[in-house]
Amino acid sequence: MDTVSELGAWMQKLYMLSTSDHASVVSMNLFVALLCGCIVIGHLLEENRWMNESITALIIGLCTGVVILLISRGKSSHLLVFSEDLFFIYLLPPIIFNAGFQVKKKQFFRNFITIMLFGAVGTLISCAVISTGAVLFFRNLGIGFLDISDYLAIGAIFAATDSVCTLQVLSQDETPLLYSLVFGEGVVNDATSVVLFNAIQSSDMTTIDPTISLHFIGSFLYLFLASTLLGALAGLVSAYIIKKLYFGRHSTDREVAIMILMAYLSYILAELFYLSGILTVFFCGIVMSHYTWHNVTESSRITTKHAFATLSFVAETFIFLYVGMDALDIEKWRFVSDCPGTSVAVSSILLCLVLLGRAAFVFPLSFLTNLTKKSRNEHITFREQVIIWWAGLMRGAVSMALAYNKFSSSGHTQLQPHAIMITSTITVVLFSTVVCGLMTQPLIRLLLPHPKQSSSAASSGPNTPRSVNVPLLGHQQDSEADLGDEHPPTSLQMLLTTPSHTVHRYWRKFDDTFMRPVFGGRGFVPFVPTSPTDERNPHRC
Amino acid sequence: MDTVSELGAWMQKLYMLSTSDHASVVSMNLFVALLCGCIVIGHLLEENRWMNESITALIIGLCTGVVILLISRGKSSHLLVFSEDLFFIYLLPPIIFNAGFQVKKKQFFRNFITIMLFGAVGTLISCAVISTGAVLFFRNLGIGFLDISDYLAIGAIFAATDSVCTLQVLSQDETPLLYSLVFGEGVVNDATSVVLFNAIQSSDMTTIDPTISLHFIGSFLYLFLASTLLGALAGLVSAYIIKKLYFGRHSTDREVAIMILMAYLSYILAELFYLSGILTVFFCGIVMSHYTWHNVTESSRITTKHAFATLSFVAETFIFLYVGMDALDIEKWRFVSDCPGTSVAVSSILLCLVLLGRAAFVFPLSFLTNLTKKSRNEHITFREQVIIWWAGLMRGAVSMALAYNKFSSSGHTQLQPHAIMITSTITVVLFSTVVCGLMTQPLIRLLLPHPKQSSSAASSGPNTPRSVNVPLLGHQQDSEADLGDEHPPTSLQMLLTTPSHTVHRYWRKFDDTFMRPVFGGRGFVPFVPTSPTDERNPHRC
Repeated sequence: MDTVSELGAWMQKLYMLSTSDHASVVSMNLFVALLCGCIVIGHLLEENRWMNESITALIIGLCTGVVILLISRGKSSHLLVFSEDLFFIYLLPPIIFNAGFQVKKKQFFRNFITIMLFGAVGTLISCAVISTGAVLFFRNLGIGFLDISDYLAIGAIFAATDSVCTLQVLSQDETPLLYSLVFGEGVVNDATSVVLFNAIQSSDMTTIDPTISLHFIGSFLYLFLASTLLGALAGLVSAYIIKKLYFGRHSTDREVAIMILMAYLSYILAELFYLSGILTVFFCGIVMSHYTWHNVTESSRITTKHAFATLSFVAETFIFLYVGMDALDIEKWRFVSDCPGTSVAVSSILLCLVLLGRAAFVFPLSFLTNLTKKSRNEHITFREQVIIWWAGLMRGAVSMALAYNKFSSSGHTQLQPHAIMITSTITVVLFSTVVCGLMTQPLIRLLLPHPKQSSSAASSGPNTPRSVNVPLLGHQQDSEADLGDEHPPTSLQMLLTTPSHTVHRYWRKFDDTFMRPVFGGRGFVPFVPTSPTDERNPHRC
Repeated sequence: MDTVSELGAWMQKLYMLSTSDHASVVSMNLFVALLCGCIVIGHLLEENRWMNESITALIIGLCTGVVILLISRGKSSHLLVFSEDLFFIYLLPPIIFNAGFQVKKKQFFRNFITIMLFGAVGTLISCAVISTGAVLFFRNLGIGFLDISDYLAIGAIFAATDSVCTLQVLSQDETPLLYSLVFGEGVVNDATSVVLFNAIQSSDMTTIDPTISLHFIGSFLYLFLASTLLGALAGLVSAYIIKKLYFGRHSTDREVAIMILMAYLSYILAELFYLSGILTVFFCGIVMSHYTWHNVTESSRITTKHAFATLSFVAETFIFLYVGMDALDIEKWRFVSDCPGTSVAVSSILLCLVLLGRAAFVFPLSFLTNLTKKSRNEHITFREQVIIWWAGLMRGAVSMALAYNKFSSSGHTQLQPHAIMITSTITVVLFSTVVCGLMTQPLIRLLLPHPKQSSSAASSGPNTPRSVNVPLLGHQQDSEADLGDEHPPTSLQMLLTTPSHTVHRYWRKFDDTFMRPVFGGRGFVPFVPTSPTDERNPHRC
């Protein structure tokens, strides 16, 4: 227990009245001012069809890095060393929670099996392709010694897609199917990559053992189920507490505080039990938006919806600013400057492997998914497959965090091959985010001039404000009753589609009979925006 | 610039995949769970007329400390060492900002001179009384050597009242005059104490120099004016940006993010320029509620109002939990255990000095203030003076932070007199918060059975929810037109009251003519809750 006081000790270093701490105040000032700048510039570029907020933040970060490099005369290039802890403990949870909170649940669960295929199996395929490619090509480049676990780690690092960036380039309202597939895959992929990475880090790779894969599958299933259950449990507990104690009577602030704290608690509880916090907080968000959100007062609803979105938005901007500023990490680039050709070669090879690794699972798995769909209307068309392939190419902060974890200790690197791997990761992240990010919107416009789902998004053009698209969570769960219109299906398709509809029907029954009387929530009745929220009526209608 | 990367380095220590960091995850879990517990228990005790949220949190913190002490078999008593940095950088800003954001501006500015008298002159008197008393009594107790700057620091430490606790024991709606006086005094007092403390720390006290006091007055005036202007400027910039760029068109999230970031930026800018961040963020809150808040969309208004209140509420609960858990700091108590009598004596003397020091300025300064009031109705009655004296007795986190800054380095203490001073500070903080906190509500009921201002708070009993009392910021600025009904004043009173009314009239004119066309805002027209917010009309009505 004594080591626990470390947490306080490091907090103490931030700001004492000494000179070096005044320097950290300087860097905090610059950072907050840059965040404000990113928001304002992002707002001004809203109409621009090429840019998006993440690219703006990345470019502003890069420019700031250059300015700092010039001011410090090449000595220092960043205000903050990239910290995986800051990322995993403070920045990622609000983003993923908000994604779960605002996700279109119907769309997500309808494509659940496809998402799992893409997220889990796809990541494994991608990792295998990248690792094999790296083993084949890197040996001839003379970048120094890397052992087998390093190669596998490279596979895991570059198999991690960037779910944050996906949120920015795909629109939930324009292309709901693509959004739910690519983003859902991203969340599952995050979890898979972290599990994979930890499995590689902890296992002894000198002897290849066939039981490793079994062990891996087992631990992935355990992780997935336990994380999901923990997240759902945290959401249900918050719903129950707020419903039973009727917080709104005294103070909406308490409701909001309980929701935020319970969501964060679910994340760090998952970390405590070595589960996937990302999955936990995502499902906690889903459960909270289904139950808890309907138990609170009207002003708490508006507050939580916007406060979570704002937190997520600021964290996203922060991450891209941070990655941009950290890209010019002079310490690592100095190692690499001796052999610029090698570095370029490594980065190019990795980029090609990322492209190849993603293609190696998107097209085959899409083909498999299409086999199970009853009508051609539900098929993932080839054009959509290209977009899924392209939109998931971005590598982001998760890759950075894993690379720093593997190839540096406390932000410093001593070995040349390790430095090359980190600079290559930065290069791949920057290139894929900027290039793929810039190209995604034009690509979607090229391939899908008239999105299939345009009927459900009548009023939402690309320039419609986000907050207008998502006026109230209740509206998002668009009438889930339309699942009833089933035509008699045939052959293999029946075998595979019926269960998902049946599951949904049973779930509705279960929800109405057992869950909602206890945990509140609106259920599947149509939403009446102006109805007064009478908390004494436990929504049994 | 190289030292700037320290900020990243310490962040990195929080959570790496090693064992000791898992311990910090444990402590974070416990802390967040305790926060949830405090909120739930605080809610259940809402009806209780003795308890309030801060005392609940303090007691839960103490109990947890005892449990940890038992589990670790006397080795450790806290999860977190009290960190002034955590307090000053993260916890205090949202509390003070929210106070400024939700304060009744009319009441505050009407009593501005009284508040400044109490906050600045009163703190000096209190500090002088406590320092003198400490010099007189401590010499005979044999607690070891303390030099003159230590005694002055003790004066500054115990002259710092706890504005956070004041927010909890006094109600803005039941006793608006007392609330604005005691809380306004608290904010100014915070600034004065910090200035005083820094002045004492930095000046050479071996030679007593009469220019020191002049120097001190000059630096206080500079600090007060510069901090206020910086806060007002930050608020105006945010109002201008949001009004000009019309953020609401695209996203309310950006509006909320800009408001939060600009408020925080004002605080750390003040820290950057060695100003008083507390004063800056307080005035930033006032300006934001007067201009910025009226420029944003309806949902942003609800979100900011509740999000700021929630942040402040969580930070308050966090502070009291933290102080409670840290009270059993075994390292310091071990020093003290050799001489329990001395420790009790020191704490008792300090408590008496705090009582005396506060009495020494509340009653004389109230007498002075009453001389300037035209009607007996506006006088501060003797009963009210007693409440002002009593409600400001609480010492809290500011005292703790200053004591840790003065008498320990990185949370550890080597000298016995220093350890005694820290344990005495903890004792005084606990005793004053619990006892004074518990007694304030009953005292108010005893002394003011029918609050004078009951007419303006018709519907607000003690059990009315906070959020119902403060339904919309607009309502708080109750019709400021009633300042016009001036009876012809006489004698000395005219000299002193007329300026404040004249100032108000000129300010209104200035606001209508120059400020509102540029910065937006509602101005002094009556608030129409259901009126649509047409942002294209710059509120010139």
